Amino acid sequence: MGDPAGIGPEITALAWAALQHTTTHFFVIGDPDLYQTTCTQLELPPVQLIHAPEQCASRFATGLPVLPLALSQPVRLGTPSPVHANMVIQSIKMAVEFCQTAQAAAIVTNPIAKSVLYQAGFTHPGHTEFLGELAETFADWPAPKGPIMMLCGGGLRVALASVHVSLADVPAQITTERVVHAAQVLHHALQQDFAIATPRIALCALNPHAGEDGAMGSEERDILNPLAQVLRAQDIDISNAIAADTLFREENRRTFDAALAMYHDQGLIPVKTLDFHGGTNVTLGLPFVRVSPDHGTGFDIAGKGLARADSLIAAIKLAQQLAAARNLSS
Amino acid sequence: MGDPAGIGPEITALAWAALQHTTTHFFVIGDPDLYQTTCTQLELPPVQLIHAPEQCASRFATGLPVLPLALSQPVRLGTPSPVHANMVIQSIKMAVEFCQTAQAAAIVTNPIAKSVLYQAGFTHPGHTEFLGELAETFADWPAPKGPIMMLCGGGLRVALASVHVSLADVPAQITTERVVHAAQVLHHALQQDFAIATPRIALCALNPHAGEDGAMGSEERDILNPLAQVLRAQDIDISNAIAADTLFREENRRTFDAALAMYHDQGLIPVKTLDFHGGTNVTLGLPFVRVSPDHGTGFDIAGKGLARADSLIAAIKLAQQLAAARNLSS
Repeated sequence: MGDPAGIGPEITALAWAALQHTTTHFFVIGDPDLYQTTCTQLELPPVQLIHAPEQCASRFATGLPVLPLALSQPVRLGTPSPVHANMVIQSIKMAVEFCQTAQAAAIVTNPIAKSVLYQAGFTHPGHTEFLGELAETFADWPAPKGPIMMLCGGGLRVALASVHVSLADVPAQITTERVVHAAQVLHHALQQDFAIATPRIALCALNPHAGEDGAMGSEERDILNPLAQVLRAQDIDISNAIAADTLFREENRRTFDAALAMYHDQGLIPVKTLDFHGGTNVTLGLPFVRVSPDHGTGFDIAGKGLARADSLIAAIKLAQQLAAARNLSS
Repeated sequence: MGDPAGIGPEITALAWAALQHTTTHFFVIGDPDLYQTTCTQLELPPVQLIHAPEQCASRFATGLPVLPLALSQPVRLGTPSPVHANMVIQSIKMAVEFCQTAQAAAIVTNPIAKSVLYQAGFTHPGHTEFLGELAETFADWPAPKGPIMMLCGGGLRVALASVHVSLADVPAQITTERVVHAAQVLHHALQQDFAIATPRIALCALNPHAGEDGAMGSEERDILNPLAQVLRAQDIDISNAIAADTLFREENRRTFDAALAMYHDQGLIPVKTLDFHGGTNVTLGLPFVRVSPDHGTGFDIAGKGLARADSLIAAIKLAQQLAAARNLSS
């Protein structure tokens, strides 16, 4: 569902329109009236109410399948309200349960507004961390556990060793333990979900010029290069720390399957610069597949016919691909 | 000249080959034997020895003009040596003097290896700071003084508020004084050198999501947005702090004439990701025009026929363009 007052409803309907003749099927957990109104405005066929995920496949070609989760109050597009927060959270829980019972192959999450959920008592830093907690209810999951955030777009896959912290707090997060863990989760996910038998990981330096032999920072010499050596001894193909400004140049992009960035903007700038609309956000290291579009709730343009569904469509397609790879490998 | 043991000699000869039939004339200050050998290997015509810059124009179509500055010892390509350091430094000083006496319109500097110069007693952090010191000998220069580093490439111009410091040291450099100064130098240079009457400057946030109202850092709220307001009151068209990951997306790139990045990788990642080979480095706020290619000395590929002159050629062309604009505006 995502936040119902944002662009979620319209991009969901647009994604259905784009995928209706394909074998990429999805259903949305949400308020039937909201989606019906949206589809009517977009001149799309009526929504298809379903009562269990298995009804999705046979109805998908006819209209957007909606598994009902009614909102207690009407939505005002563009005006976020904490009155919907419980339903937003409930839709996430339901999606996880459908994966747990194998009724769904993957989860795609529309954007939420954290500040709105916080007002309703939500205590997780974001979607990703909440899903990480829900994942703990899964019985067994032998792989290295995330959640680790990875952006895909512009031909790049970039995972993050630190995420939503101020720039001043980044260096303290670049510990051997954290970076090793992120690399292990990334390596395993590239094998299991992306079907890359021997993934090549490029390790981003924290400092400019990869520290230039310690002249501009010592983390490469003291933390990153030593841990990369240890990981290589564990058969994880990871580079020493590479200066991040040259890593993403065109020729270099072909030399690795994923990069491990040290902080948010270092990883997101290249992806969004190359491909803003088609970028997606994958959560690695969960017992289920989770992908989301790489943009926010878009309250400012909600309901105005301006929102683009490119990222959501890419997310749905990628989720299907990852789920297929994971089923093959499990 | 740049470091004579790197790719400087061959990209200089290649740049001459690319520009020989144009009105973009340049001469190189360096060792005539070294350039003659290089031109012979590249099957280019013999170099043209000149003894004063004014001879350059009439000789340029015939061969690469070289203003002699002989090295004391032969160069071994790929093997940097401090024995050449004094000549490297001397060539920079001569270039500045030619600008001071209006015998040259602009300076283009080939890459130097700082560690090699340091061994010979060079004490400046780099080319840019050395040029900033040499600029102090110029009598009057009414504009805001740099040096401020700006990268051009991929349709972007990105100036830096902090440059060659570790990531941990960046936040301490993001002071009102420094950022205001960088913005003023940038604004003036866009007018004077880039001939943009009312330049639009995009201010990069330091933190992810521009701090998200203080949740991930307070510099936007406490430093950057207030100083942007002050600058706008001085008729400098600068935005509030914008999240850097979305700033460089394609649609946004058209909305500003230059961005002011807070740190090295934030500014260099988008430029090099979009255009690695054609990127150039401009020093703003000097009493002369200075541009350099946006790459290093390339010791590992020197003399192997692998070096590309794209960036140097772009630098020479841009230097000519900036010098023309500056002459018109002065």
